[in-house]
Amino acid sequence: MSHTQPWFVQVNLPKWFESYLPSYLGIPLDDAHAMDLAIALSAKNIQHHTGGPFGAVITNSHGFLVAAAVNLVTSSGQSWTHAEMLALTLAQIHTGCLDLRKAPLAPLSLYSSAEPCAMCLGAVPWSGIARVVIGAREEDILVAGFDEGDKPALGLASLHRWGIVVNADVQRQAAAAVLADYARQGGAVYQPPPLREQGCE
Amino acid sequence: MSHTQPWFVQVNLPKWFESYLPSYLGIPLDDAHAMDLAIALSAKNIQHHTGGPFGAVITNSHGFLVAAAVNLVTSSGQSWTHAEMLALTLAQIHTGCLDLRKAPLAPLSLYSSAEPCAMCLGAVPWSGIARVVIGAREEDILVAGFDEGDKPALGLASLHRWGIVVNADVQRQAAAAVLADYARQGGAVYQPPPLREQGCE
Repeated sequence: MSHTQPWFVQVNLPKWFESYLPSYLGIPLDDAHAMDLAIALSAKNIQHHTGGPFGAVITNSHGFLVAAAVNLVTSSGQSWTHAEMLALTLAQIHTGCLDLRKAPLAPLSLYSSAEPCAMCLGAVPWSGIARVVIGAREEDILVAGFDEGDKPALGLASLHRWGIVVNADVQRQAAAAVLADYARQGGAVYQPPPLREQGCE
Repeated sequence: MSHTQPWFVQVNLPKWFESYLPSYLGIPLDDAHAMDLAIALSAKNIQHHTGGPFGAVITNSHGFLVAAAVNLVTSSGQSWTHAEMLALTLAQIHTGCLDLRKAPLAPLSLYSSAEPCAMCLGAVPWSGIARVVIGAREEDILVAGFDEGDKPALGLASLHRWGIVVNADVQRQAAAAVLADYARQGGAVYQPPPLREQGCE
């Protein structure tokens, strides 16, 4: 570290993202449509080589888009930039509410094209999001070679402690198909592997 | 969400931070000194009202500073900006390595003034950090009113799956004292509370 190194973090959503999203503005999205968008974003992200095969969308209680994001780990060089983390953060920026329970037209819902990893699951209660809707399951993610990390014993149900509602298997087949495609194309798994895969355990 | 809302995330470390850090550059820090710095940052963060009572430091194998950060949740309005998350991200930015195992003078160590919450614990394996050193324990954090979230059954030992070494109780008393001070001063607890504290469970 030197005196000239930056003391700020910046992450830009990709250029294709800004031109893709506007057609979804001002249209109320139901669960299936919001998930379709999250899945479409995950597929676009692969096509554009801008990150891993994951997308996330946040809507308000009227179904209007509040934020959306894709996984940017490889393009940003920052391992926290999972789709869910960025979508929650953009929702806080767009609404001006640290606690999304206080956002206009709350409660807000997070749509994730795939089950959140341990980090993202841990981040959810701190955001004030009220509902988490999931496409692909952990076993579908494993097909693409990604480790989900070590989650609490209760898994997704751990969110109930904060009154957060969880809906799984929404458009699961379409979400899982994107992950299977990624695997077939030999898509990069950019995580440091656990020891057993390093041949040390 | 409108057409004019930003599609990027930015987090700036506070102004006081940049003037405080340079005296630590170019001096090799042992475990006690690196933790002293993380704790000093946590205390400074309270004094300056720039966030919660948490600091984090990252050093390389020679003990030189690679990155440092404080909790910026209240000042950034972004709930992911815990000290550990920002320190890991700044280390990736400063070294240019998404996988910190490949950083110059790796392996790298993370010093956290207090035990990482569920989100930060989940983030650690994705960063490539090799070692996590902890000051205050979860019970010291509870004194200040903060919930740590739901962690895996193995707790910190879950990191062993990635070969990550954990050292706890380094300067614990000094770290816990900062948290106790924060509680005495009536420092803000900015997390959405679990249901039982909302009187609904």
